[in-house]
Amino acid sequence: MNLTRDLYGGSLSLLTDLYQLTMAYGYWKSGTHEKEAIFNLFFRENPFRGGYTIFSGLEYVVDYLESFHFSDEDIGFLATLKGNDGTALFESEFLEYLRAFKFSCDIDAMPEGTVVFPHEPLIRVRGPIYQCQMIETPLLNMANFQTLIATKASRIAEAAKGAPVLEFGLRRAQGIDGALAASRSAYIGGCASTSNVMAGKLFNIPVSGTHAHSWVMSFDSELESFETYARVMPNNCVLLVDTYDSIEGIQNAIKVGKAMQAEGKNLMGIRIDSGDLAYFSSQAREMLDAAGLHDVKVVASNDLDEHLINSLQDQDAKINVWGIGTKLVTAYDQPALGAVYKLAAIKEQGGSWKPKIKLSEQAIKINVPGNQQVRRFTKNGKLVADMIYEEGMEPQDRYLMIDVADPTRRKKLNTAELDFQDLLQPVFRGGKSAFEKEAITAMRKRCAREVKQLDRSTKRLVNPHIYPVGLEQSLYQKRTDLILQLRKLNDL
Amino acid sequence: MNLTRDLYGGSLSLLTDLYQLTMAYGYWKSGTHEKEAIFNLFFRENPFRGGYTIFSGLEYVVDYLESFHFSDEDIGFLATLKGNDGTALFESEFLEYLRAFKFSCDIDAMPEGTVVFPHEPLIRVRGPIYQCQMIETPLLNMANFQTLIATKASRIAEAAKGAPVLEFGLRRAQGIDGALAASRSAYIGGCASTSNVMAGKLFNIPVSGTHAHSWVMSFDSELESFETYARVMPNNCVLLVDTYDSIEGIQNAIKVGKAMQAEGKNLMGIRIDSGDLAYFSSQAREMLDAAGLHDVKVVASNDLDEHLINSLQDQDAKINVWGIGTKLVTAYDQPALGAVYKLAAIKEQGGSWKPKIKLSEQAIKINVPGNQQVRRFTKNGKLVADMIYEEGMEPQDRYLMIDVADPTRRKKLNTAELDFQDLLQPVFRGGKSAFEKEAITAMRKRCAREVKQLDRSTKRLVNPHIYPVGLEQSLYQKRTDLILQLRKLNDL
Repeated sequence: MNLTRDLYGGSLSLLTDLYQLTMAYGYWKSGTHEKEAIFNLFFRENPFRGGYTIFSGLEYVVDYLESFHFSDEDIGFLATLKGNDGTALFESEFLEYLRAFKFSCDIDAMPEGTVVFPHEPLIRVRGPIYQCQMIETPLLNMANFQTLIATKASRIAEAAKGAPVLEFGLRRAQGIDGALAASRSAYIGGCASTSNVMAGKLFNIPVSGTHAHSWVMSFDSELESFETYARVMPNNCVLLVDTYDSIEGIQNAIKVGKAMQAEGKNLMGIRIDSGDLAYFSSQAREMLDAAGLHDVKVVASNDLDEHLINSLQDQDAKINVWGIGTKLVTAYDQPALGAVYKLAAIKEQGGSWKPKIKLSEQAIKINVPGNQQVRRFTKNGKLVADMIYEEGMEPQDRYLMIDVADPTRRKKLNTAELDFQDLLQPVFRGGKSAFEKEAITAMRKRCAREVKQLDRSTKRLVNPHIYPVGLEQSLYQKRTDLILQLRKLNDL
Repeated sequence: MNLTRDLYGGSLSLLTDLYQLTMAYGYWKSGTHEKEAIFNLFFRENPFRGGYTIFSGLEYVVDYLESFHFSDEDIGFLATLKGNDGTALFESEFLEYLRAFKFSCDIDAMPEGTVVFPHEPLIRVRGPIYQCQMIETPLLNMANFQTLIATKASRIAEAAKGAPVLEFGLRRAQGIDGALAASRSAYIGGCASTSNVMAGKLFNIPVSGTHAHSWVMSFDSELESFETYARVMPNNCVLLVDTYDSIEGIQNAIKVGKAMQAEGKNLMGIRIDSGDLAYFSSQAREMLDAAGLHDVKVVASNDLDEHLINSLQDQDAKINVWGIGTKLVTAYDQPALGAVYKLAAIKEQGGSWKPKIKLSEQAIKINVPGNQQVRRFTKNGKLVADMIYEEGMEPQDRYLMIDVADPTRRKKLNTAELDFQDLLQPVFRGGKSAFEKEAITAMRKRCAREVKQLDRSTKRLVNPHIYPVGLEQSLYQKRTDLILQLRKLNDL
């Protein structure tokens, strides 16, 4: 299955900013469009003031690029666009060029579910500059959002400390795909299931769900509604107890649970969706236990996130399963990641790479130039440090890495004492996929494994320890020289 | 064109919460699925602490429902779902029922672009309860998000006071459709164009865009990059001046602008995307004017929203065009509307409607029961009040309406002194579309017209005046009686 082609009816090649196409046209028109460039997709800060991020969205990107071409309809639309003097924006010869072009870039990327950090290239694109440029916006759209949601889900799953987290955000998600892609990334990040049946079908995610308040309201009494539900769906019975009065609701659920027990069936749980979840969950647990219904789970929902889960745990809430909607699928407290895609190098006439940066008043906004790779150092299965270096440099026994923002933050890395691996892996070569699809459960496992390898202090929700990420010293020096040169401050 | 069918490749019928299908199954299994019900889609608070909301998303809803059916693939997937004892969740007879079912609901809704307020039904669904239930989640998904974005766009357009607002949020939007639907709703809400070429093609919205920092970086000098762009695209030339140093960038743009002028061409504008926008825009205006380039516009962007636009205006920034991305398309400061879909009545055996409500500790969360319509009263083209009443009640010369949350907030409405119209209009009858598609420009005009009809105090960004919305007194009484009866507090 191709996620984007099967989900969307037609070509998605126009899913880009117009300026990507006007720039492509500019390069083509000035004869420089085949010039080779390197662009990196990266973010500058972990979302949610957290200490780590989970990369997601790559399979969307791959599927998008595999079917990347301009359809006749796309070309027809571009031909209608006009400039400010009423003449065509694009020459027809350029549009014919687009109609015929074949995607030919090399792409390397991190696997989905990888724990990643600021400044690390998550996706590296190398190829003709006009092609690199045209795919910038869709790549950002897919990687930004899915990475954001996988990260949020991981934080929530960590807060839940192993208790299952059910994602049911479809109704409040930002658009149809804002829901579908969120369900997918939430599962990779650690959720146990989604309420979104289509996401279940498309992405092979477990789906879950029982009944809503309207079910209860449609009957003359709550007890009757519970009895009916238990009779028609005894193998999927979680009763929502707060339509009228939560304590009475729990009592009614207990009546039904005991009747089910007597028939050899199991009430799976009760759900509380409003009010004081700490109080009502404790009451529910006591009442259920007193009735001998020890296996009946207490499910809680109602605008929860990782912070509320923590707070409820501090209050000794007796909650076995967490239902999370809006706050997860919209990443409510930070609804955008802010990843960017920056030109890092251009191939010169002679064939050597010329590093490129954009200046900014804010040092953190100045990108890292060159053809980068990320090397992750580990020791006894624990993450130690990530070093960004220029691919092709001579291997060394010892490295010195320097923080992008603070040159006094440095770390020595001795390869004899550490294990290491490079994180960017081939995804496209010459425009052809070199990507091996993996099961979504493999991505989810990778995420769980790598989050476990992180020090606890890095996973803290508030003021986490900053995981060491730096530039290998020669790359750091190259960047510094380039900044000073562009600012004309390299000497008097 | 059918928005959802053409945009998505296959059936969207599984784009719903599993519990809608388990409830549908429960009704079917207990033989009550054909019972007629009324559900209302409404929200409880204006987003962004604002005074009004713009309804959007209806055309998506209509297109979705027009192609609503369960495909063989959908049924096949549902057949794989299992309960906690490993047996099938749904009997095959029910799945055959779904495969054959025909949508038969009546739907009434507000037109897109309408100014709306809390508690008003935006979409009213009447029909067999299992059908009403199955469409709950997709309707909420589409209406929630698009209404949120249209509202945000309207607030931003109001803050811009007539200056064009360009939407370019695709790269940070929440998923593919989170971008497309946002571009559509942003245009309805008042944006002048989108950067998203596909949104332009799908929804017939103007598209705009010129070049990015990478264009400048790919040349050996900024001036060379500007000259090249002006040469290849003289009819769409806005130069981005802040890649290295904004003042030098403006100087380079002025050189190019004067050269274009000499050739009878027009530099449309310069764009500033970082730094102190108040300072640099004023500098740019002065420098451009001094060079005789009075018609060259100053475009500003960089994480802007309605509050920053206001602040920049207060600082006398000289900005002619606003570019808005992330903060608009993700509704950054409130990324979910929180609209709900509640059962309001069920038809009894005898054929009369039995009103239904859900209780809550919070009075504002208790819904309004019954078969509602919204009557908008105006005077001399200004909005006066919206009254929610039960359709079918005898027309009266004078109405008393009562606030849902505060029974002492009341308003008398004399129909002899006021104009009025009912806002809910037929969209489906017996499952067949009764909807006349309108051009997106018509929705955009409706929005602009109605926002203009609102009192200025209601449009204030901070602490707006609360526009009068209330229940017609007999409906108010019915709701109060029902609450007291359910709480068993109607007498001693």
